[in-house]
Amino acid sequence: MNKVTSVGIVGATGYTGSELIRILTMHPGVSLSILTSETHHGKKISDIYPYLSGICDKKLMKKDELKEHELDLVFLALPHGVSMEFVKNQWEDGYKIVDLSGDFRLSSADVYQKWYKIEHQCPNHLNDAVYGMPELFRENIKKAKLVSNPGCYPTSAILGLAPLLQKNIIQQHGIIIDSKSGVTGAGAKVKKATHFPTANENFNAYGIANHRHTPEIEEILGKITGQDIQLNFTPHLLPINRGILTTAYTEMLDWKNENDVRSIYYNFYKKEPFIRLRDEPVSVQAVRGSNFCDVNPILDMRTNKIIITSAIDNLIKGAAGQAVQNMNIMLGFQETLGIDFSPLSP
Amino acid sequence: MNKVTSVGIVGATGYTGSELIRILTMHPGVSLSILTSETHHGKKISDIYPYLSGICDKKLMKKDELKEHELDLVFLALPHGVSMEFVKNQWEDGYKIVDLSGDFRLSSADVYQKWYKIEHQCPNHLNDAVYGMPELFRENIKKAKLVSNPGCYPTSAILGLAPLLQKNIIQQHGIIIDSKSGVTGAGAKVKKATHFPTANENFNAYGIANHRHTPEIEEILGKITGQDIQLNFTPHLLPINRGILTTAYTEMLDWKNENDVRSIYYNFYKKEPFIRLRDEPVSVQAVRGSNFCDVNPILDMRTNKIIITSAIDNLIKGAAGQAVQNMNIMLGFQETLGIDFSPLSP
Amino acid sequence: MNKVTSVGIVGATGYTGSELIRILTMHPGVSLSILTSETHHGKKISDIYPYLSGICDKKLMKKDELKEHELDLVFLALPHGVSMEFVKNQWEDGYKIVDLSGDFRLSSADVYQKWYKIEHQCPNHLNDAVYGMPELFRENIKKAKLVSNPGCYPTSAILGLAPLLQKNIIQQHGIIIDSKSGVTGAGAKVKKATHFPTANENFNAYGIANHRHTPEIEEILGKITGQDIQLNFTPHLLPINRGILTTAYTEMLDWKNENDVRSIYYNFYKKEPFIRLRDEPVSVQAVRGSNFCDVNPILDMRTNKIIITSAIDNLIKGAAGQAVQNMNIMLGFQETLGIDFSPLSP
Amino acid sequence: MNKVTSVGIVGATGYTGSELIRILTMHPGVSLSILTSETHHGKKISDIYPYLSGICDKKLMKKDELKEHELDLVFLALPHGVSMEFVKNQWEDGYKIVDLSGDFRLSSADVYQKWYKIEHQCPNHLNDAVYGMPELFRENIKKAKLVSNPGCYPTSAILGLAPLLQKNIIQQHGIIIDSKSGVTGAGAKVKKATHFPTANENFNAYGIANHRHTPEIEEILGKITGQDIQLNFTPHLLPINRGILTTAYTEMLDWKNENDVRSIYYNFYKKEPFIRLRDEPVSVQAVRGSNFCDVNPILDMRTNKIIITSAIDNLIKGAAGQAVQNMNIMLGFQETLGIDFSPLSP
Repeated sequence: MNKVTSVGIVGATGYTGSELIRILTMHPGVSLSILTSETHHGKKISDIYPYLSGICDKKLMKKDELKEHELDLVFLALPHGVSMEFVKNQWEDGYKIVDLSGDFRLSSADVYQKWYKIEHQCPNHLNDAVYGMPELFRENIKKAKLVSNPGCYPTSAILGLAPLLQKNIIQQHGIIIDSKSGVTGAGAKVKKATHFPTANENFNAYGIANHRHTPEIEEILGKITGQDIQLNFTPHLLPINRGILTTAYTEMLDWKNENDVRSIYYNFYKKEPFIRLRDEPVSVQAVRGSNFCDVNPILDMRTNKIIITSAIDNLIKGAAGQAVQNMNIMLGFQETLGIDFSPLSP
Repeated sequence: MNKVTSVGIVGATGYTGSELIRILTMHPGVSLSILTSETHHGKKISDIYPYLSGICDKKLMKKDELKEHELDLVFLALPHGVSMEFVKNQWEDGYKIVDLSGDFRLSSADVYQKWYKIEHQCPNHLNDAVYGMPELFRENIKKAKLVSNPGCYPTSAILGLAPLLQKNIIQQHGIIIDSKSGVTGAGAKVKKATHFPTANENFNAYGIANHRHTPEIEEILGKITGQDIQLNFTPHLLPINRGILTTAYTEMLDWKNENDVRSIYYNFYKKEPFIRLRDEPVSVQAVRGSNFCDVNPILDMRTNKIIITSAIDNLIKGAAGQAVQNMNIMLGFQETLGIDFSPLSP
Repeated sequence: MNKVTSVGIVGATGYTGSELIRILTMHPGVSLSILTSETHHGKKISDIYPYLSGICDKKLMKKDELKEHELDLVFLALPHGVSMEFVKNQWEDGYKIVDLSGDFRLSSADVYQKWYKIEHQCPNHLNDAVYGMPELFRENIKKAKLVSNPGCYPTSAILGLAPLLQKNIIQQHGIIIDSKSGVTGAGAKVKKATHFPTANENFNAYGIANHRHTPEIEEILGKITGQDIQLNFTPHLLPINRGILTTAYTEMLDWKNENDVRSIYYNFYKKEPFIRLRDEPVSVQAVRGSNFCDVNPILDMRTNKIIITSAIDNLIKGAAGQAVQNMNIMLGFQETLGIDFSPLSP
Repeated sequence: MNKVTSVGIVGATGYTGSELIRILTMHPGVSLSILTSETHHGKKISDIYPYLSGICDKKLMKKDELKEHELDLVFLALPHGVSMEFVKNQWEDGYKIVDLSGDFRLSSADVYQKWYKIEHQCPNHLNDAVYGMPELFRENIKKAKLVSNPGCYPTSAILGLAPLLQKNIIQQHGIIIDSKSGVTGAGAKVKKATHFPTANENFNAYGIANHRHTPEIEEILGKITGQDIQLNFTPHLLPINRGILTTAYTEMLDWKNENDVRSIYYNFYKKEPFIRLRDEPVSVQAVRGSNFCDVNPILDMRTNKIIITSAIDNLIKGAAGQAVQNMNIMLGFQETLGIDFSPLSP
């Protein structure tokens, strides 16, 4: 295939950036034209990530160099706060954008400020951004100039809960989302909490009652039901590199049986290439290295609850893989192109 | 100190058995007179656990040998189903018993049969058994002939929730207990789920809606409130050796503030030597190797919830350490004797 | 591409078998016609390895079914002892064979019996077998009917040492090979040494002075120099899933400098697609999930030694990946076809 | 016992400092009078290490405060370069000193400068320092004012090799020491190499041919034989928290058998409370949490080599535990007092 489609990555040296490089280098439809890093420009990406040696040895550029390239699409793998500056300044630059930060995931600048503790710098484009979850918003993604790639935790939580809410068989309030993420979710920057001796043989919750992914989950689930939703989301840090497992607790409105619930999930996801409906509680190892989201609902008849486990690789379906899935949709490629690889296990 | 008090361990070669050996060898008040193993009798315990070499090199005996010893107390570190046979047959033997299996934790033989899937062989002694959680039942433990040592998950869950239920400030129904345990909780016997490549870099829920610790938690919390309680308990397997972290979700009956809730916990636990009330979400590393249970309640004002994290070492406060704490109470030692060691971290 | 080339895997349910499935499913040149398992026939491979669900859901067959298929090549992912029976009985069956066991790696049936403790059942085909290390024996592999895929440890050790021995700049005797392998190297079968709590947070040597890979390394290195070589090889068990790191110690015959040594490696490997010559000590994470072998030689001028570190993914370059590389050569595909994927890191 | 002996820790917030606190808090013979930290003074040690809450909640002081206390002994848990300044300035202060840095381990200021790359600031006290390995230098430690606590790697290497060199049955030159350490050996300070996602599921050598522990091992082994020794030492980073395993390769001078060698080790260590001679290759898990050093020699008759594995907990026998062992000797306590606890496993 002739690689004529040209893409760039802004902020290429974090974990989502390097994962995008890994995936796009093997993608048969696009050419990776430019990688930027304000901190490491001048170095090769494989100097920073030796595993990429021989796979991608491109030199890192400053983002000013973007204008030297005819780009069809740019991935922003930037921290929140920095992405919105980029979008504000480069909006007219012609290429499409997939933003992997949190800056364009919430539709309200006020809600953004409340949870992210900074003022939004580009509120006029919040409505231009499409939430990049193909299973829910595929048609809008096709036409979008700016796609806001979902957060890792929200991807696992929303994909686990969407069928139940769309079919209106559970209480909309009182949903509990207990999520556990591998340490790459905390980023490539060193800090005490992710120092090996601290994180290894350890496990803890963090951000209880105030994690930024809470309003993101609430907003998207609310769009499904057409009503405001308030829920509890608690993230935890798992001593593994990759993977998120979410356990969600919901209360049934009316009595349902396993077959009813299974049918709802089956019908909701039957055409989705990356959702695997499972017969047993899911595990992170079964999705690691892939763009799959595994989902399993279990009924507790005794307590009238449905308990859903869902698992993703936080760097793939939770970040770079879903971003490429969005790119495929935005640029007219087959949706699975270059991301239909197997999990790597064990 | 003259070691005149004599104790034995029946079923010494599992993880709780070996942990009892480790602790009792260093305990200044008792002499470890006999270790039994029907499978490995004739070998030294340090042949099976080389780490114990030079610490305890006693030979393993068959349990028939118990009658050769004048024992004050016997620990049963047996599988469920086997413990109740022992209690039935040896009830008249004179020594006190701390049973670490699940056989005497539930007061009803019917409930036992429903969750454990076997008929109870010793129902007449169910009422003799005292639930060995000193923070709740210290006075009864003092007088007990048979103490049923709590399950590891229930220990973390009950200690996290007891103050709120005792003060009647939360809904009794709808409590969600999401627990995560290290792999030693699954025992020393090899199996596919705990093969290193399967469990490492992995995480999953199991036993959703049917784990045996559910009725145990419900019964004990129900005793606190005087009413039947139904709740959801979901265990998960963490890729670490030791430690349980429980995240519990409860709904406030009336509006409370952080100080109210903190005072409730403070007052409930202020005289307890092994409960540490924390200012931040707890971690398993901070309790590993100790008999501590760390507890932290956080209020989510937005959703009217109290979210409690609690952490223990599953082999110590969740098994052998709490068993020795019970022994100390039953035999009239200072409650902290021999178990007031520091956590080992990192 | 039209998949007309047909291959099978005999013994598909171990770790090397499942890794072959993962790789061959994504391979553009072959069709995976049959998977066999005497133990699990009738089940789907994805029942045993849920991660393969949606990737490969083929049913496992008994090996008798092989004759129903027109196969170009068969991979034997069998235990040693079983492979030689297969080769003895099916030699006339027409397809080429890549054997991943140790049965055809040594040229002498006597040496085999000495180290493997069983009599060789198929000594007449020992000379037909070509040692499947393309970097050394590519031309012979092209013409082979039977390729014996190298052991995981020998792959890392031989690729680290071959350039020095071929250029005759080190002592041939006294070489020390200290290797460390992830737990998948011990196979999918559960045992005490690979029970998670035993292997996790642990590290130990095993098989000192008697590991079967010793004569394999000695024979192949001896072929390079044309002389018998005796060396020490010590394997260790690393608490990780995948990866082998080998540290080899050699003594220089004459004084060399870093540039001399680096040139030797550079020239030896400059056309090799899967060898990466590194500037710094190598790491297993940089090769995990890939067919790369990373190599780094360092001179210790003070002691006149060259210390070489080399790293592979034991299931890929150390097993399934190298087997597919051999298949590519044997069947006339481009050597890198289907195995030129990036490492997965972190 | 009446705690009248008063000790202090200078630099209490690193891993060796906190481990000293853990051990000394439980030590029946001493009172921990002062902990200093120039960085964190004013905070409680349990604010920095929450696991110590309830065990030791002392406030950290500046080191100027030392003079307010009547101290019998001070532990220096400082970085190299800082310790020698302290010793230079406080030499007249009256208390004994156990220095856990590398500053007083080498007898020559020139060798120090060559390997540590800084000039020694206190060369006049190099000869006052006794190398604090009780198994070799117990009598000198008794009389010492300044004990230089051995490095973690040297402890494992020297204890593994000393009996062979003392009995003069191996070649003194050409010894290979291949060591592997858990990540706490790299200290509490965060850095890229010890970021969890980098170190986890990884393994690599570092400091090849230039690690500072090389001359330390050479000097001490040389003292045993009375001759200069040159050897190769290579450290590696293990993805575990605690533990060092050393694999050492030596060449026999004359033919010996297993019994000969075993007798040599047995006689050398028969009165040593912390050395366990093992029948099989040692493991780090069997010593974790204890002051034991496990040692196992194996003969390779084929190659005329003795291969020794030795294991310690790097923070205990490799640092804080051995320091307290030295303290016990220096202050006239029973040598095992307060450090005869069991390993914690699994």
